[in-house]
Amino acid sequence: MDATRLERQIEFLKEVDRLKLIERQSVVSGTRRPETSAEHSWHVTLMALVLSEYAPPGVDLARVQAMLLIHDLVEIDAGDLLLYADDAARARHARREQEAADRLFALLPSPDGERLRALWDEFEKRASPDARFAAALDRLQPLLANFMSEGATWRRHGVTAEQVRAKNQHIADGSPELWRFAEALIAESVRRGYLPTNTEPP
Amino acid sequence: MDATRLERQIEFLKEVDRLKLIERQSVVSGTRRPETSAEHSWHVTLMALVLSEYAPPGVDLARVQAMLLIHDLVEIDAGDLLLYADDAARARHARREQEAADRLFALLPSPDGERLRALWDEFEKRASPDARFAAALDRLQPLLANFMSEGATWRRHGVTAEQVRAKNQHIADGSPELWRFAEALIAESVRRGYLPTNTEPP
Repeated sequence: MDATRLERQIEFLKEVDRLKLIERQSVVSGTRRPETSAEHSWHVTLMALVLSEYAPPGVDLARVQAMLLIHDLVEIDAGDLLLYADDAARARHARREQEAADRLFALLPSPDGERLRALWDEFEKRASPDARFAAALDRLQPLLANFMSEGATWRRHGVTAEQVRAKNQHIADGSPELWRFAEALIAESVRRGYLPTNTEPP
Repeated sequence: MDATRLERQIEFLKEVDRLKLIERQSVVSGTRRPETSAEHSWHVTLMALVLSEYAPPGVDLARVQAMLLIHDLVEIDAGDLLLYADDAARARHARREQEAADRLFALLPSPDGERLRALWDEFEKRASPDARFAAALDRLQPLLANFMSEGATWRRHGVTAEQVRAKNQHIADGSPELWRFAEALIAESVRRGYLPTNTEPP
């Protein structure tokens, strides 16, 4: 055992404890308490396990789960951003996330850090079927959370069904079946009054 | 796509949201806020990814991660139990966990529910090298959390180094290297005054 190697891995695992302090826009079902990014990361990685049959043929579940376990670590430095933020805010946030990835993955010894950084880049760019399936789950989880909380986040930010559909339709690139489910969930959210449409009076 | 199958999988994924409401004995580093079981589950599954090289040859990382993602779901019904609770409390808690597993995994369609239930049983009994490695990580994570919080949970419950060593030494069955690291961490905790020994004045 190379002590220095293990020591660096442990330092990384200590540092990422802070993902438990990052609050998301979604709330935990039945409460008004925001879920943390660590909780979201667990939920979405479990979704990959339970929903793996809806991945396109050839998708590697282990790589999908690795992406989902690390996809939000950059929020330790950069924070969470509302999915419906404007372009300037998104560009600033993307730069902060790159700097965060530079810092965090470099805590690991080589080649672990480079390997996880490459996985994170692949996820961010949705550069493979694995990444597109992971990204689909990362969008489906907050849709479910919003549905369970009767649209709490949507209503707080005045988001419409058209915006939700536009921002989430890349679920279709990761899993056509899960996109059909998501579309039905959005329609049901409108029907129940959780989510207004552009043509409705507010 | 069998709609009923997906609907049941989604109902399971909604129900497990409640793991975000279960508070553990460990606190999040730098705070007095207990970590939730969902956060712990994320952290320990990420540990499996980062520390996989310390698993014995032949251990299947995907099975280890699946066990860790689901290992605490039973706490949704049964709650968390202090590792150092007495035998009667442990027996009562084990019965409640079995009932919780019966209920929760039956939410899933067949054969998913049976498959995850078998994985959970295997983990609980530490019945394979995969389960013993997963169990080692499940013990190492709270050791790290306690170290980072300067022994907050140990001190609150008056736990001694001898108890910590006895309750955690099955880490050795999952990974001799990680047990050597854990032993060093316990010794350093004593040296720093985070953890008393039996022979020390309180």
